[in-house]
Amino acid sequence: MAKQLLSSNDEIIPMKPDAVLDAHRRIKAHINRTPVVLSTMLNNWLGHEIMFKVEGFQKIGAFKIRGALNVLLALKEQNNLPKEVVAFSSGNHAQAVALASRMLGIKSTVIMPEFVSKVKQQATRSYGAELILTKTRQEAEARASEIQARGARLIHPSADDMIIAGQGTACFEALQDGVEADAIFAACGGGGLLSGTWMAAQLLAPKTKIFAAEPKMANDAAQSFHTGKIVSFDQTPMTIADGARTLHISELTFHYLKQLAGFYEVEEENIIYWTQWLQHLLKMNIEPTAAMAMAAAYQWLKTQKTKQRVLVILSGGNIDAATHRQIWAKDYLEQVPQI
Amino acid sequence: MAKQLLSSNDEIIPMKPDAVLDAHRRIKAHINRTPVVLSTMLNNWLGHEIMFKVEGFQKIGAFKIRGALNVLLALKEQNNLPKEVVAFSSGNHAQAVALASRMLGIKSTVIMPEFVSKVKQQATRSYGAELILTKTRQEAEARASEIQARGARLIHPSADDMIIAGQGTACFEALQDGVEADAIFAACGGGGLLSGTWMAAQLLAPKTKIFAAEPKMANDAAQSFHTGKIVSFDQTPMTIADGARTLHISELTFHYLKQLAGFYEVEEENIIYWTQWLQHLLKMNIEPTAAMAMAAAYQWLKTQKTKQRVLVILSGGNIDAATHRQIWAKDYLEQVPQI
Repeated sequence: MAKQLLSSNDEIIPMKPDAVLDAHRRIKAHINRTPVVLSTMLNNWLGHEIMFKVEGFQKIGAFKIRGALNVLLALKEQNNLPKEVVAFSSGNHAQAVALASRMLGIKSTVIMPEFVSKVKQQATRSYGAELILTKTRQEAEARASEIQARGARLIHPSADDMIIAGQGTACFEALQDGVEADAIFAACGGGGLLSGTWMAAQLLAPKTKIFAAEPKMANDAAQSFHTGKIVSFDQTPMTIADGARTLHISELTFHYLKQLAGFYEVEEENIIYWTQWLQHLLKMNIEPTAAMAMAAAYQWLKTQKTKQRVLVILSGGNIDAATHRQIWAKDYLEQVPQI
Repeated sequence: MAKQLLSSNDEIIPMKPDAVLDAHRRIKAHINRTPVVLSTMLNNWLGHEIMFKVEGFQKIGAFKIRGALNVLLALKEQNNLPKEVVAFSSGNHAQAVALASRMLGIKSTVIMPEFVSKVKQQATRSYGAELILTKTRQEAEARASEIQARGARLIHPSADDMIIAGQGTACFEALQDGVEADAIFAACGGGGLLSGTWMAAQLLAPKTKIFAAEPKMANDAAQSFHTGKIVSFDQTPMTIADGARTLHISELTFHYLKQLAGFYEVEEENIIYWTQWLQHLLKMNIEPTAAMAMAAAYQWLKTQKTKQRVLVILSGGNIDAATHRQIWAKDYLEQVPQI
């Protein structure tokens, strides 16, 4: 049952990179064209050129709306739009499915563990989803089966071609806007953002290296990358990078993740360090999961002998109060970034 | 001695509102044209139209660079640019004077109390200022006198025509960008921002009401406004809105502040509430002093029977780690804003 819910693709037929172009054509009128920004001060300190694609300014405060909209708009093009969708998510995917469904005038149900913060519950509801809170994973799966049985389509957060192509539009936009980068860094949760990013680069910047950032304490994808087979955790790793608390990647995203230039595993302390500093330098809300990509970029830049141009995809800006408290418990702003 | 340092204008000759236009002509090529943004969700919840001018995205992370640059560029126009400037400041004015001086190639010295956080010290130094940390107010004034004696010009944070005209360019830009507002709200520290805002509105939107926001526990300007004479505190009020910790306004800013439509005094809890919510809704770093203006707007909106259009000037986005901790100590995100 779990397998069926978590991966809808049995056989993998790789998409052409053009799928990102199609996704962008579908969704662009419905989303924000998020800015690419830089910090002169940071670039001076590090001696490199770092550009940030700010998906915190995307609708719902994260890139996830891109994939969810692409799924539904692609189904609509095929005259196959369902009357109802269902998703499991405790994070940004929940809000993305809720808002995308409302934009297309269909019903959505989101199943969340009951410990999720009230502000996340409230946000998901305010985008129009029906919310089901469950105690256990078994209960969640049982409820999802019921909803699917009445004709709802399950939208998986990453194991879906149209999700991957949609998430790739963030990098696609940055490259279209003229960003020239030697390397691109993004966070790895289920791997949808990175799979799409790799496709976008294939299309517009095939020489650019794509790197993944993962928490050291939630390094299932990095282990999978290095061992060549999918490694899965039994329990949700409690990293502060809550977008990377996935138990395992899917066969579908693994297909694309294998093509990356490498994985960087980031210590919790370094995730927090860069969350503080990016918030301080950019004056924006940066999720720990997003800042983790900069932490990885920093690890890479330390090994470089010549000046590099880096694009960091800041995946989102949704932070609840408890996480803010965790971020600011220690003061890292007294330690200026340097290489 | 203190009086002399704190107010350089003995006789007040009111500026014409055109002074804001001149200021904008002088500084516009050197500053960021900051965006005006809104939150659809907030507007739906409150039933009003609230626009935010985001000065956190201004150079140095606050509006203060506008005034400091206008002072120096106006002196340069008169072939009167000093070789050196000096300022007292523990906040954004320090960084503004430092950066403006560097942009014009002159030396700056900033005098700060030694308890100021290291990140503020470091930021001021990194913009090129020489920093003098002092234990007492007396010591600070003695050092400033020495520096002035060698020919340096003191730049006061608010009691200066060119500072006021410069700060007014934030509102001027918003109005020039087509913002139509029934009321405009901004924070009151020394009163420079509000004085300039009033002048900008005289020029481009004379029917718009201008309101001041002040912490209830640091309500010297509100008391001055209501009693008709300048009220001064003996000790620095320890409000979380650190930009409003001034002991008193000056005769110069009082002249303009008297013209405002009113003052709103904001409880600390409400300052924190709106700091959390604006950060959450806009995904930006919003200083408590800036969020206080929204808290005041909310108090006003609660008394309105018809839909109002409001411009809130978000004065800055510089927050140190200790203040972040104070902001997030309690969770206000569970209480959705409503009227």
